[in-house]
Amino acid sequence: MRNVGGKIIICMQFDLKKSIEILTRTPYVIEILLNGINNEWIMNNEGENTWSPFDIIGHLIYGDKTDWIIRMEIILSDSQNKRFTPFDRFAQFEENKGKDIVQLLNEFKVIRKQNIEILESKKINLKDLTKKGIHPVFGEVTLEELLATWTAHDLSHIAQIARVMARQYTNEVGPWKQYLPILEK
Amino acid sequence: MRNVGGKIIICMQFDLKKSIEILTRTPYVIEILLNGINNEWIMNNEGENTWSPFDIIGHLIYGDKTDWIIRMEIILSDSQNKRFTPFDRFAQFEENKGKDIVQLLNEFKVIRKQNIEILESKKINLKDLTKKGIHPVFGEVTLEELLATWTAHDLSHIAQIARVMARQYTNEVGPWKQYLPILEK
Repeated sequence: MRNVGGKIIICMQFDLKKSIEILTRTPYVIEILLNGINNEWIMNNEGENTWSPFDIIGHLIYGDKTDWIIRMEIILSDSQNKRFTPFDRFAQFEENKGKDIVQLLNEFKVIRKQNIEILESKKINLKDLTKKGIHPVFGEVTLEELLATWTAHDLSHIAQIARVMARQYTNEVGPWKQYLPILEK
Repeated sequence: MRNVGGKIIICMQFDLKKSIEILTRTPYVIEILLNGINNEWIMNNEGENTWSPFDIIGHLIYGDKTDWIIRMEIILSDSQNKRFTPFDRFAQFEENKGKDIVQLLNEFKVIRKQNIEILESKKINLKDLTKKGIHPVFGEVTLEELLATWTAHDLSHIAQIARVMARQYTNEVGPWKQYLPILEK
């Protein structure tokens, strides 16, 4: 929320430059947090059918490989078929078998850098941002919504990684648990 | 959760070395995320009486200045008075007036480095971890609980910073909001 000349503004408006600031930083934020750390922080999750930080990075890589940029290209293309392929939220479990965290962090940095280069090469203007694709569930979505979601999705998974890690100490903090709402399921 | 020889372990046990891994990284994680980024990401909050990333860093610095290490020293001291001073959760609003994000990030790196040095200089052993102080609200707490809380508190505020930033795009993601539970209040 911002107070702009006495007017309260709750949220930011989409801005490509500000979004790229986040998208560029995400792999490095995760690398600084996880590189060289004990494997328990990386591999532990929040219980059955939940994701570890390792799984989350796999999910982010898979999104960069198969989702965001490909959907952007569908929206910007001249093709009449604007329908997106559904995204597989569980592909990382097969994709990352046998890999270690260093491989995953490097893979994420490389694919993200390539994707930012593709994104910047499109010289997206305000009119482009209003162009549409067809989401398999929601139907029509704009390029602006896609790019805003990519950005918020990154931040959401950074928050998730930190939360999963914090929760490893749920039993260890004793009575302080009541001051740490993140530890409550 | 870990599967150790067929036995499911939900949480990690406290370990000083593993905790220091987190405590050392926190200022750098936040720096990579926020340094050089548009000020809107840094100064916007989630609405009235909520904290911006800037406020959260101020809170972390104030904890490092007045809380964690001082409470540790009370617990480890020979004094009979083991009572902690209550922590001021809102002091950062006064403390950080007129400062910018670069100053805050540097201040946090410096004080955290000093505090890790003090922590390591204590050569804390398993017996020390069971020693107690008196929390103004909970009563008796152990050194282990204090240090576990310091660690989980860092991770909780990294998650909070990323969440506050993600929510700036709540209106921008369009129908994808339903796939991003972090955007729901």
